[in-house]
Amino acid sequence: MSLLLRGGRVVTMDPSRRILEADILVETGRIKSVGTLERRKVGTKKPLILDCTGLIVLPGLVQAHIHLCQTLFRGLAEDLTLEAWLAQRIWPLEAAHTETSIYWSAMLGAAELLLGGTTAILDMESVRHTGAAFEALESIGIRATAGKCLMDAPSSPSALRESTDLALQESAALCARWHGAAGGRLRYCFAPRFAPSCTGPLLRAVSDLAEKAGAVVHTHAAETPLELELVKRERGNDEIAYLDSVGISGPRAALAHCVWVDKEGIARLARQATNVVHCPSSNLKLGSGIAPIPEMLAAGCRVGIGADGAPCNNRLDVFTEMRLAALIQKPRHGPDSLPAAHVLELATLGGARALGLQAEIGSIEEGKCADLVVLDLEEPHAQPEDADLVSRIVYSAQAADVRHVVVDGHVVVHDGVLKTADTREIRRGANTEARRLRRAVGI
Amino acid sequence: MSLLLRGGRVVTMDPSRRILEADILVETGRIKSVGTLERRKVGTKKPLILDCTGLIVLPGLVQAHIHLCQTLFRGLAEDLTLEAWLAQRIWPLEAAHTETSIYWSAMLGAAELLLGGTTAILDMESVRHTGAAFEALESIGIRATAGKCLMDAPSSPSALRESTDLALQESAALCARWHGAAGGRLRYCFAPRFAPSCTGPLLRAVSDLAEKAGAVVHTHAAETPLELELVKRERGNDEIAYLDSVGISGPRAALAHCVWVDKEGIARLARQATNVVHCPSSNLKLGSGIAPIPEMLAAGCRVGIGADGAPCNNRLDVFTEMRLAALIQKPRHGPDSLPAAHVLELATLGGARALGLQAEIGSIEEGKCADLVVLDLEEPHAQPEDADLVSRIVYSAQAADVRHVVVDGHVVVHDGVLKTADTREIRRGANTEARRLRRAVGI
Repeated sequence: MSLLLRGGRVVTMDPSRRILEADILVETGRIKSVGTLERRKVGTKKPLILDCTGLIVLPGLVQAHIHLCQTLFRGLAEDLTLEAWLAQRIWPLEAAHTETSIYWSAMLGAAELLLGGTTAILDMESVRHTGAAFEALESIGIRATAGKCLMDAPSSPSALRESTDLALQESAALCARWHGAAGGRLRYCFAPRFAPSCTGPLLRAVSDLAEKAGAVVHTHAAETPLELELVKRERGNDEIAYLDSVGISGPRAALAHCVWVDKEGIARLARQATNVVHCPSSNLKLGSGIAPIPEMLAAGCRVGIGADGAPCNNRLDVFTEMRLAALIQKPRHGPDSLPAAHVLELATLGGARALGLQAEIGSIEEGKCADLVVLDLEEPHAQPEDADLVSRIVYSAQAADVRHVVVDGHVVVHDGVLKTADTREIRRGANTEARRLRRAVGI
Repeated sequence: MSLLLRGGRVVTMDPSRRILEADILVETGRIKSVGTLERRKVGTKKPLILDCTGLIVLPGLVQAHIHLCQTLFRGLAEDLTLEAWLAQRIWPLEAAHTETSIYWSAMLGAAELLLGGTTAILDMESVRHTGAAFEALESIGIRATAGKCLMDAPSSPSALRESTDLALQESAALCARWHGAAGGRLRYCFAPRFAPSCTGPLLRAVSDLAEKAGAVVHTHAAETPLELELVKRERGNDEIAYLDSVGISGPRAALAHCVWVDKEGIARLARQATNVVHCPSSNLKLGSGIAPIPEMLAAGCRVGIGADGAPCNNRLDVFTEMRLAALIQKPRHGPDSLPAAHVLELATLGGARALGLQAEIGSIEEGKCADLVVLDLEEPHAQPEDADLVSRIVYSAQAADVRHVVVDGHVVVHDGVLKTADTREIRRGANTEARRLRRAVGI
């Protein structure tokens, strides 16, 4: 099946960052051509046409740190520090998950993500029922790299802790089942929660397994000073250096947060080409701080962006994260720091790299996967129309401006409506399960 | 004409902050009753009915610092410090305004505001053509207190500078024409730009004129350290104390920003009951800093919220400002600082006080003006539905969730569509004028 996006203004994010008035022809899930297409050149098969006249076409936006399993906890864990937030709310709620609640949590989150222009995610699930999340991701049509959360350290909450062997065995089985599924749209990641939750042997084994499978390692790092101190005390090293020492570094690793990283840590992240995933809303809401993103970019670090989980945000909105990423650095570094064009890179090319998919997604170029977002910026809030387009996208646009979304050549959102699932059914399923979870943990 | 909002969940913001399942009956622009209404009680005249089943009803949201005259400059002044932003872009653009461009700038901004649930604003126009802004405000149906900007200091840019006498005369004439117009929906404010732009005699005269007219004084204060130093050097006093000394303090004064205010300044603002208007996006985007809002609230200050002008934001979205106000304090003061319930007060009761309209707007109570916003929080991004409602409004809701808007008893937005003006016509007018302004100043 072929698809033609006709007449849009295309923000390519190609190496010369061209912005073109162009048609985009999609065949078998890939971008076949970008440019003005004469009608006869479309070929004999009549493509499905998306009229993009007056609209903006972007590469599908990428969020490289999401917890879909927490979407049902939105609004249930307000005004707490990370440590209290985890121990009092998130861990008990995760422990109460069933296959059904994991499924609806993923459906609710993925619906919000797709409707808001996020086409690809790096997702950390909970310890159990990760297969149910993959089933949701398969049916709803988002591009996702997801993994079961790993927690084997003695200090982990007993309701979630697993033995090292069982945790690794289940991970390997999930990887065998889902890595490359749905025509390559779904991939597996190995997801140790964070250094304090995991033993050294588990972290080393994860690094080996991920390398063998060609999979990403997805974890958290350096989110709070408390976490930093704990790792230093227990493992005798700075967290970034410790993770590096057990093999969790380099292009295959994605470290969410990295708020509390010093100059040496930044140099190490840059040297190893480790992916940092910036989560500005989450870092503010939990009071963690502001990550030194301009310093990281100046040092040559790879940086992506993500909303984290719904209870620490409370949105899964890449437009909110982009705007906030740009704004929060300016009081510290001046109003010209992290300009709009750099921020758009985090949410496209930076995210693609964090997922190990830079050859497949993150820009609109011939041969890449057809992951595309069509924006309508004609409403008053994004006018006048002659201002810098990237600035309009980063500072003015909002999730509700997303008109159409294409993933892997399939139109998953059309005219603002999700085509791959019924949002009323998702609402019903999600609310039923959210109520059950609240009762189960007594909140 | 009477209006019935039937079956909504009503966030009253009344003294006990009740949240009710209630009908709201509106008669001749006022809230007649809040509660379950038996059908026969509606009276003989059939009211217009807004079905609010499954929806949330809020008091109309208030933004107490807006520059509608800058809406056409959105995206034309990126990545500059306040001082460069003013001198290189905003002042030349304001100087190039005509009656026509002021009109379309106000229409574009007011359309965005109403569509996003802001029903009342405190607006600072430019030096000239303020009458054209009032004409736009009159026709589009927003509640607005607006004023001509005053700049008479020798250091002011010559293209905007006026003599003290002429500036005051025009202000008085505009006040006579517009203060209380449109049945009281429009009001005048005296609007000295900021202390460095204004002579002492002008500031003192403004204070007198405002007191006589029962009008608000609307100005900027303590936005950057540079401004603070300048005032200290030229006027021999801290800015807040200086403004107080010339009569610009107390319940009648609204000071935008107040980022750089020390303990003594905060105590003075609290003691005098001066209104502070917090502009979090603007303060971040221009690199000004983060205002000490929790300290001000703890000291008993009156605080409102506002988006400022479009070029330093680039949205006029009260939901964006509320969420950001809550988030940016948490790294400094902990995740329980400025909780959602406090933030909603800034955008309702706090704004009402800054406009001097606390007896008229800011809550849903019998006898108050019928300024109401109806939100649809059924989309995936605001689910699950059982979480704390105020948290859903502050952290998850977005401008596009606004379904209906009522100002002074009139339905100005219905089902997401502006009823008082044609947004396509606004787009045409605004873009024509924005292009002319860019050419006029060579950007």
